[in-house]
Amino acid sequence: MTITNRPSAGYALTIILECSRAELGRATAAVLEAGCELTGLRPLADGSHELVVACSSSAHQDEVRRVLAEFGELCVRAISDRTFDRHVGGKIVVSPVAPLEDAADLAMAYTPGVGRVSRAIADDVEQVWTYTGRSNAVAVLSNGTAVLGLGDIGPEAAMPVMEGKAVLFKQFGGVDAYPVCIEARTVDEVVAVATALAPTFGGINLEDIKAPECFEIEQRLQEVLDIPVFHDDQHGTAIVTLAAVQNALRVVGKRLEDATVTIVGTGAAGVACAQLLHHVGVGDVIGVDSTGILHAGRAGLTPTKQWFVDHGNREGRTGGVREAIVGVDVLLGLSGPGVIEAEWLEEMADEAIVFAMANPVPEVMPELMPERVAVVATGRSDYANQINNVLAFPGVFRGMLDARATRCTVGMKLAAAAALAAFVPEPTADHIIPGVFEPGVADAVAEAVAKAAADDGVIRRR
Amino acid sequence: MTITNRPSAGYALTIILECSRAELGRATAAVLEAGCELTGLRPLADGSHELVVACSSSAHQDEVRRVLAEFGELCVRAISDRTFDRHVGGKIVVSPVAPLEDAADLAMAYTPGVGRVSRAIADDVEQVWTYTGRSNAVAVLSNGTAVLGLGDIGPEAAMPVMEGKAVLFKQFGGVDAYPVCIEARTVDEVVAVATALAPTFGGINLEDIKAPECFEIEQRLQEVLDIPVFHDDQHGTAIVTLAAVQNALRVVGKRLEDATVTIVGTGAAGVACAQLLHHVGVGDVIGVDSTGILHAGRAGLTPTKQWFVDHGNREGRTGGVREAIVGVDVLLGLSGPGVIEAEWLEEMADEAIVFAMANPVPEVMPELMPERVAVVATGRSDYANQINNVLAFPGVFRGMLDARATRCTVGMKLAAAAALAAFVPEPTADHIIPGVFEPGVADAVAEAVAKAAADDGVIRRR
Repeated sequence: MTITNRPSAGYALTIILECSRAELGRATAAVLEAGCELTGLRPLADGSHELVVACSSSAHQDEVRRVLAEFGELCVRAISDRTFDRHVGGKIVVSPVAPLEDAADLAMAYTPGVGRVSRAIADDVEQVWTYTGRSNAVAVLSNGTAVLGLGDIGPEAAMPVMEGKAVLFKQFGGVDAYPVCIEARTVDEVVAVATALAPTFGGINLEDIKAPECFEIEQRLQEVLDIPVFHDDQHGTAIVTLAAVQNALRVVGKRLEDATVTIVGTGAAGVACAQLLHHVGVGDVIGVDSTGILHAGRAGLTPTKQWFVDHGNREGRTGGVREAIVGVDVLLGLSGPGVIEAEWLEEMADEAIVFAMANPVPEVMPELMPERVAVVATGRSDYANQINNVLAFPGVFRGMLDARATRCTVGMKLAAAAALAAFVPEPTADHIIPGVFEPGVADAVAEAVAKAAADDGVIRRR
Repeated sequence: MTITNRPSAGYALTIILECSRAELGRATAAVLEAGCELTGLRPLADGSHELVVACSSSAHQDEVRRVLAEFGELCVRAISDRTFDRHVGGKIVVSPVAPLEDAADLAMAYTPGVGRVSRAIADDVEQVWTYTGRSNAVAVLSNGTAVLGLGDIGPEAAMPVMEGKAVLFKQFGGVDAYPVCIEARTVDEVVAVATALAPTFGGINLEDIKAPECFEIEQRLQEVLDIPVFHDDQHGTAIVTLAAVQNALRVVGKRLEDATVTIVGTGAAGVACAQLLHHVGVGDVIGVDSTGILHAGRAGLTPTKQWFVDHGNREGRTGGVREAIVGVDVLLGLSGPGVIEAEWLEEMADEAIVFAMANPVPEVMPELMPERVAVVATGRSDYANQINNVLAFPGVFRGMLDARATRCTVGMKLAAAAALAAFVPEPTADHIIPGVFEPGVADAVAEAVAKAAADDGVIRRR
């Protein structure tokens, strides 16, 4: 297994150098020699220099610190981690729409004026959508049991991720997203807390909640609440993946109805991808978990894993990842780093499509894939075709809030995927999905989702 | 009972007039004649005029609408309620501290960078105070069971108040306050939800939760949580009231130890005021609820009402409000409009102090009070000496967050009150407490609270 890491801003260091020009040059050369990417160098007002370098991992950062230690503390005044620096004090703020300039403002925004607004909502609860921020507010709710690839690290440790999500919600979707990290481990506890919180929000984005609890939590919440509940790890991933798969199939000239898709990793994302593909009529879906292919002979499967047996694997394949890949058109990796050997991909169908979406290290590195693989996607920003949920969730919630949707239907998810796919009218092997910063993506998704909500009749009366 | 209302911005109307100068003049004259206060008149780009007038009540607004209806729709193009206009879409937003400019920003604020920050917090949970917004975040939590004077109007209808509070938290204390309106009616439910939410916040401000549940909720939460829990309706009011009472006593040259204080209204605020006064050694406290004076002969009292019997009313007075007032030095009204007859105040001690804090209509209007009353305070901004919680809670939480306090002690509340009182070094009958917009109030309170937290040993290790 070969794992290649490229320097990333996510591992960048800020280095303050206070030394001669010669030493500055040598230090810069040393970090470049150590494999860093130089992303900034500027003189500071006090005569020192600030050097910004991207490393490729925490271990690489340590190595750079060791290299620089040789220059001495008098020369290297400080080394700090840009990612941690950026997190000090958190990443979001709550602010007034308009400041209170005087007593008149206070009388309108607070007492006595606010009492009449409260009275109006008490008389007609639907007015809450007009006169409060509920119409634009989403809870980004996690109990911290499945955070990124880190596992069950608890609600406090989940907070930076939820704050990051809130930043993305606002920047890409204009949504006011509130990180809500809760101490609640069981399905019942999470459902109880989220239900109690619902009056504050126009939607709930579940995040980083472990399987299988996440499935029941989402389902039960959507049953009792009249606002949309959306588990991004499932549906955000599924929407973007479906869009990318559809465009990749166009690139290689295959029809979805004829395609067999193997999904390695049947957690929250894998299940949702399989179900959405099934909804649009994919030829066949084969699920593979850490024990091997999901087939009728496997005992004691959870309901979501059983779904794969009931709805896919028509040939009744058995075996492991390697057996699951033979002859298939599309391979979706939603598991962990390096679980797929590059040579196995030789046995896929011609013009194979491989999405290796484990993050930050894919199931198999793109540069190792054989010629047979015609289209490659990953979860990373430093390769073509990044499958990133941020292409979906800001637009999905923007659309649901705009429509005042009461739930998130399959039709809405399919509409989001279709809008995303259509955003790339002429897909090529290197461009099957829009880039994260491509303008207009969230708007296109939002419009499609809002329309689908209206079509499905799941919008609130005005 | 006479209730006087003055025009307030809380009842302002915006009127768009498109008519001749003569009609404009007549319409303006008509609204002034109707008792409005003219607070703005300006020409708009399209040749029409915008007139802003403050009314004194909803009924008064209706009267003005009727008066203006006579000018016809061609002249009066639109009349809207400024308070409702200001509430459209809500009063707060959630924003990124810094926007994401490019993929490098995304790699730091979100994946892969964020994973290392989460990992660091998982390894040492105290890092959450450095690397997330928790250190500046407060939940403004209500179940909507006792909203302003409106009663049990539900969580949705409570939202405008909590948003208003969030605006005040930010503007006066720099605190990121999250409105959290929950569907939870019992003590157990509220405690369960607030406990689950705690990892997200550096403090919890309970708000507009009805008595007696509010007492047990606050107490139980503070027992289980290691962040401060503060019920503003109790302690915010008590802090500001204590500061104002102390300065009022200075004005009339009486000592707190010698003073008898009658409190009309023994809900959340009344109880907290009584207890804080008791803590600083007030002479006596007499509580009066809707049934009359709290005394040893009253059966079936709640624990908080029993407190008044156990700790106050040393003479064993019985009777109603009138009997409770005779000969006392200080009268605190924390009940409802007009429940005190002005003539009863003639029977108070010389140089009497009366705080009529029911809002918006006081227990007795200041202009009706006899000469004997030397110092008057209300909850209103249009009279001298406004007892407004906003003088306390932004600074109290600012101080608790700065100190990373783990709870809110009596010592911290007393320190807040002392700082507020000291903010008016030379109190007079018309100035016993700072104005809401007086700069520096929250800072002074914050500093005192943070110091008291350190003195009381209730701060988090760094």
